[in-house]
Amino acid sequence: MTIDLEALYTDLHRHPELSFQETRTAGVVTGLLAQLGIEYEEGIGRTGIAAIIRNGDGPVVWLRADMDGLPVEERTGLAYASTARGVDPTGLDVPVMHACGHDMHVASLIGALERLVATKDEWSGTIVAVFQPAEEYGAGSQAMIADGVFDRFPRPDIVLGQHVTPLPAGTIGVRSGTQMAASDGLTVTLHGRGGHGSRPHATIDPVVMAAATVMRLQTIVSREVDPRDVAVVTVGSIHAGLKNNIIPAEAKLELSLRYPDDEARAKVMQKVERIVRAEAQASGAEQEPVIAVDHSLPPTINDDEATTRLSRAFDTAFGAGTVIDPGMFTGSEDVSWFAREAGVPLVFWFWGGVDAGAFRAATEAGTIERDIPTNHSPFFAPVLQPTLSRGVENLVVAAREFLGERG
Amino acid sequence: MTIDLEALYTDLHRHPELSFQETRTAGVVTGLLAQLGIEYEEGIGRTGIAAIIRNGDGPVVWLRADMDGLPVEERTGLAYASTARGVDPTGLDVPVMHACGHDMHVASLIGALERLVATKDEWSGTIVAVFQPAEEYGAGSQAMIADGVFDRFPRPDIVLGQHVTPLPAGTIGVRSGTQMAASDGLTVTLHGRGGHGSRPHATIDPVVMAAATVMRLQTIVSREVDPRDVAVVTVGSIHAGLKNNIIPAEAKLELSLRYPDDEARAKVMQKVERIVRAEAQASGAEQEPVIAVDHSLPPTINDDEATTRLSRAFDTAFGAGTVIDPGMFTGSEDVSWFAREAGVPLVFWFWGGVDAGAFRAATEAGTIERDIPTNHSPFFAPVLQPTLSRGVENLVVAAREFLGERG
Amino acid sequence: MTIDLEALYTDLHRHPELSFQETRTAGVVTGLLAQLGIEYEEGIGRTGIAAIIRNGDGPVVWLRADMDGLPVEERTGLAYASTARGVDPTGLDVPVMHACGHDMHVASLIGALERLVATKDEWSGTIVAVFQPAEEYGAGSQAMIADGVFDRFPRPDIVLGQHVTPLPAGTIGVRSGTQMAASDGLTVTLHGRGGHGSRPHATIDPVVMAAATVMRLQTIVSREVDPRDVAVVTVGSIHAGLKNNIIPAEAKLELSLRYPDDEARAKVMQKVERIVRAEAQASGAEQEPVIAVDHSLPPTINDDEATTRLSRAFDTAFGAGTVIDPGMFTGSEDVSWFAREAGVPLVFWFWGGVDAGAFRAATEAGTIERDIPTNHSPFFAPVLQPTLSRGVENLVVAAREFLGERG
Amino acid sequence: MTIDLEALYTDLHRHPELSFQETRTAGVVTGLLAQLGIEYEEGIGRTGIAAIIRNGDGPVVWLRADMDGLPVEERTGLAYASTARGVDPTGLDVPVMHACGHDMHVASLIGALERLVATKDEWSGTIVAVFQPAEEYGAGSQAMIADGVFDRFPRPDIVLGQHVTPLPAGTIGVRSGTQMAASDGLTVTLHGRGGHGSRPHATIDPVVMAAATVMRLQTIVSREVDPRDVAVVTVGSIHAGLKNNIIPAEAKLELSLRYPDDEARAKVMQKVERIVRAEAQASGAEQEPVIAVDHSLPPTINDDEATTRLSRAFDTAFGAGTVIDPGMFTGSEDVSWFAREAGVPLVFWFWGGVDAGAFRAATEAGTIERDIPTNHSPFFAPVLQPTLSRGVENLVVAAREFLGERG
Repeated sequence: MTIDLEALYTDLHRHPELSFQETRTAGVVTGLLAQLGIEYEEGIGRTGIAAIIRNGDGPVVWLRADMDGLPVEERTGLAYASTARGVDPTGLDVPVMHACGHDMHVASLIGALERLVATKDEWSGTIVAVFQPAEEYGAGSQAMIADGVFDRFPRPDIVLGQHVTPLPAGTIGVRSGTQMAASDGLTVTLHGRGGHGSRPHATIDPVVMAAATVMRLQTIVSREVDPRDVAVVTVGSIHAGLKNNIIPAEAKLELSLRYPDDEARAKVMQKVERIVRAEAQASGAEQEPVIAVDHSLPPTINDDEATTRLSRAFDTAFGAGTVIDPGMFTGSEDVSWFAREAGVPLVFWFWGGVDAGAFRAATEAGTIERDIPTNHSPFFAPVLQPTLSRGVENLVVAAREFLGERG
Repeated sequence: MTIDLEALYTDLHRHPELSFQETRTAGVVTGLLAQLGIEYEEGIGRTGIAAIIRNGDGPVVWLRADMDGLPVEERTGLAYASTARGVDPTGLDVPVMHACGHDMHVASLIGALERLVATKDEWSGTIVAVFQPAEEYGAGSQAMIADGVFDRFPRPDIVLGQHVTPLPAGTIGVRSGTQMAASDGLTVTLHGRGGHGSRPHATIDPVVMAAATVMRLQTIVSREVDPRDVAVVTVGSIHAGLKNNIIPAEAKLELSLRYPDDEARAKVMQKVERIVRAEAQASGAEQEPVIAVDHSLPPTINDDEATTRLSRAFDTAFGAGTVIDPGMFTGSEDVSWFAREAGVPLVFWFWGGVDAGAFRAATEAGTIERDIPTNHSPFFAPVLQPTLSRGVENLVVAAREFLGERG
Repeated sequence: MTIDLEALYTDLHRHPELSFQETRTAGVVTGLLAQLGIEYEEGIGRTGIAAIIRNGDGPVVWLRADMDGLPVEERTGLAYASTARGVDPTGLDVPVMHACGHDMHVASLIGALERLVATKDEWSGTIVAVFQPAEEYGAGSQAMIADGVFDRFPRPDIVLGQHVTPLPAGTIGVRSGTQMAASDGLTVTLHGRGGHGSRPHATIDPVVMAAATVMRLQTIVSREVDPRDVAVVTVGSIHAGLKNNIIPAEAKLELSLRYPDDEARAKVMQKVERIVRAEAQASGAEQEPVIAVDHSLPPTINDDEATTRLSRAFDTAFGAGTVIDPGMFTGSEDVSWFAREAGVPLVFWFWGGVDAGAFRAATEAGTIERDIPTNHSPFFAPVLQPTLSRGVENLVVAAREFLGERG
Repeated sequence: MTIDLEALYTDLHRHPELSFQETRTAGVVTGLLAQLGIEYEEGIGRTGIAAIIRNGDGPVVWLRADMDGLPVEERTGLAYASTARGVDPTGLDVPVMHACGHDMHVASLIGALERLVATKDEWSGTIVAVFQPAEEYGAGSQAMIADGVFDRFPRPDIVLGQHVTPLPAGTIGVRSGTQMAASDGLTVTLHGRGGHGSRPHATIDPVVMAAATVMRLQTIVSREVDPRDVAVVTVGSIHAGLKNNIIPAEAKLELSLRYPDDEARAKVMQKVERIVRAEAQASGAEQEPVIAVDHSLPPTINDDEATTRLSRAFDTAFGAGTVIDPGMFTGSEDVSWFAREAGVPLVFWFWGGVDAGAFRAATEAGTIERDIPTNHSPFFAPVLQPTLSRGVENLVVAAREFLGERG
């Protein structure tokens, strides 16, 4: 059979699943792998899958796609928009959406495997395709490693991966060195003292404590980091209280931090802790706040030589000027654990999913940020084509660049 | 049968129910009313009950108790502590606790009815006992009125009610005029623009918008209200976001406002709106915030003459010095709708639930606020006795004061 | 000669002087005392004056007026508006205005003395008139005491004083018990680390530290004081930096605190200190902030019996309904040191300086706060009459009430 | 005579003068120019000087040094520390310090001129030495241009300038393209309504308005600018109020803004205005805030070709590795107006003034920011040597690189 990739993509888009819950997605993937006659193992790192195409001597190339959706309520208005819901780790029922394009990653990798199987006489070596869960938790690649993916499959000579992004369709963005930031996810629990909403003086108000903390955390980036350095301190969630007339006993903040390296990480972490503790003291808190690191992602660093080689291959395949340097992204990824663990080069690139005309118009109008929804937005919606076909071709070109040639 | 009031109280305490969900509580109440041979109707205003004792000519006295618990996780450590949970109006599964003592109110009213039935030969007139739902939503009394309680039962000549509070056991606090504040519950929805946590510049961060709004709302009380006037602006809940690395699209605040009268209400409401709108503008919000009034409670005003008369009766019954003026409370009540609707006097009093020795010790140590948990605290726990027996006696004395005498 | 009191008042108004610099004012006063043949001493507590009228046996009544102006730029547009300037204690050249009405106090006391001299055959006893400096620093009465006013003049049997205020002309506001709040003036010095405005990361920004501190200080009144209690935390001045592109090394805040009694004072002071220190920590300050108490004023407490007696005298003299209870004022005074030191009763009253029609119109329109300038406002301007004549009469009636009668 | 440059430097350091007040400095400079037999004109742009050495055919090279000090109180503890004071444009008496090293710039240029005069037989062309006033106001170069410096002296073929900075002594930092940021200096006046410190409700508190504005302005950099872009929003001064118990009528903020280009400037300016206006609305201000742009500096852009050529010359003169790329500085300069106006290349470089050993130790200890005072700090103190001798040599090498050679 020939796989209908557009049908695959829209089906995945309609049925996003939260991190470590990608069971339906895994079912779709393994079903197609079986159709393609590709050997695989599933349930690696809970819901992960690794598949292998052995094709004689030559390098081992790992191709990685991530599978999970996000707790975002889709507002794209697409015919194939998601109305799915899921239960998050705290037990909350939430909307789910492929707001980061992992559906495009999965469909592209399936398409690339189909093409590589069909052209086995042109190349030699081994392909390992990794369908990774829980990238959004920064936990999926480590889960697969902990679950023995390196014991069960040949170790890579190179790890390759890609991400769809709001660049004009047709463009590939990649750079040597730090491509994506290091990142930590923190949960901060602030302890006040609860009581009646009409008697604030008998309480220690954790809502005010949280608000003051959020305002003060802004000063890390605005005042304490060299304006020439990259740093992000985002409070992505804030939760306290159940009712207007009860002052709750605690508040929870979830923070996402970004920096280019470990030294910057250490400094920002110390500043966050200093501010959180001092703001609790300013409130007269009787109990220290608790700061937990939920996940910690290394910077995504592209290998110099391999990146140069691959950039040239892309420009050759798709035309000069295809590859641009997008600069360092402040987003983070856990793909690099595969390469770090194996001690081999990584190349991780971005490809464009925005209609080129729309992108140009928004650029000229200076309305990029308003008009072009970014990853994680409820409006995030890559154009179906040429994004999907290019997602497939990117992987084929990249894999072929690092595999052996035949004939 | 003789009702075991302590068993009734601890049973109610173990099984608190959220507002308008007091079905088990209503079952317990109606079961006992039946045992006492008292005529009643249930399901008035969803889960409310009214009962009547007709005993010849004379005034109609309404005695009111409220029945609902609160979404608070009990931490009293009592043998009869609640571990109950419920589903709040937003569908959230929450802990439930009788953190405001309504279990004490119900048990006291049952006890008083038992006593009044047993002494029917001593008094004449009509008693209507109202077991009201959803006081915590400020909605139960209006629900009972809307559901025809005034058509189905004789209209009152006076409305009486009581509330257990952290005064020393044995004490009754009541004053003529404004006894409790007027109050509004608001929900404020702030609209930002969502996106990836690493790309704040492509978003309008509603968490920061909410934090700045909370900080600014503090200035209403600190700067804009005459220091000699009573006003409270509490942000009882703040919710935004589901994940550290997604900047959400909106934030929700729930506010509880308190003031002595309608003029102050108008001023504070206008200030809240001014600040909420301006802070959204400071964030560059593209969509106006939405401010909804969820409920609106009038001040609880005690009738001068009836309060003076009842205070004297209490002092006579329990000893001079029993009644103190507790000042105006910043808490609010919906009991006054019954009296307002009927156009008759109201007396609503507080009685003490704290061990007198512990209260004195805390007063002397200046640690009242730390050591004596207030209503709505997870540690709120009236001492069983003499609180319960006095709750019963208060109602009997009060009812008898306004009923006719026999013989 | 007959003193032209209106000319005296407008002259004083045109020539206000800062605290402890009231030399010209003292010259005017002593010149008139000499004309009236009243014995006096000057230079008591730097620029203070005490004068005495001995008139046989009887009580010793002290009448006190304060003399100093304020660093406010007058904007009343009056023909006799001040354009004066002065040098404040920090060496700063500032505008000066009688924005608190002390010119009215001085003129009224001179007028009263003239009247009392003229009617010596009607009363007996001793009058001591105190023209006090530096009330605005809360320092003048103590300076006069330290400088021996009690050794140089007969100790009082009662101390009387008055203040002009935005009540309708003709009205007197006075109450038994606490009439004015206790108050402290603090200077808070926040230490950061200076540097270039373009390199915030190399500094510890005291401007941000100060701003965060100001915002947090709001929460003392909004969250930590019982809404039924009176408390004020005002940051009256904030100063840091000399130039936009230099981040300064420190910031200074001047705070004015108000409370009804010493217990509240202790609590608020502790909260201020807690917040100031914690906010410095939140900024990562390397040096502790310094909190200095510049002055500390006791509550102004009117003697019960004397106040009742005087209120009756005022109502008799000016018509029933003249005296109203204005409630406790959050402003503070140092007049009470004279009575405290002597261990005698004090009565301190307010009298109205606003045109009665204008006051009524503003009350009806609900625009009192907008239309009626308060003390310390650049627009503060008592109507000349009947304010001045009533200021004189008030003192005469009050003095006569407590002096002996003759004939 | 041979000029004692160390004596010159320490003399200048002891006698700093504020911008446009550099009369003594100008006297010292012109005295030495006369000694060196160099033709000059003074009083160009108030206190500026231009001097000329004509030496046959060849390029016209402008060498520029700035002369003004800053309102900073010196705390270096140096034997030659400044205790000078000056009167700033607002009439305030302030301390003055050479906290930005302009004394080093002047001494170096004098030293270089002495050397260039002594070696006239080795080079040909024309040197114009510009001693510019008021760099700290961003106003001096434009003042000299407006005052006809281009009419009175030959127009440059290239403009050269240098700045001492906290790099290790011996190092030169320079880069092609944007070397220093664009910058604006703003004054923001916030209008409240004044009144008595005890009656905040009768006022509109400009101190709270200012504090909220400062906190909100932080969010421009923390949330609204791409984390990869350079932007600085500094509130360098905040002033309101004269006394703790008077709530003032207005507050003044002075802001220093930095960005790499005009597009970023437009965006940040719009955000500042949005926040300032909205925070005034949040306070209920009755009068709009006033935002004035005090000065506006373009980015300092080094000519590609000339910078490459000069870097090579420095490395040749002082040893390979002397020149490093310091990145873009967030500081700003007005030197570029001279080159912009003439339409010729500019090279502006930084040279190190920190003892190399101390710099290395602080780098290793990670305490650079704490231990090495930056420009504008009260502790800023370049080591006398080799900073001064290298300042001279830098200018000689640079001038000679672009002048013609002889014989």
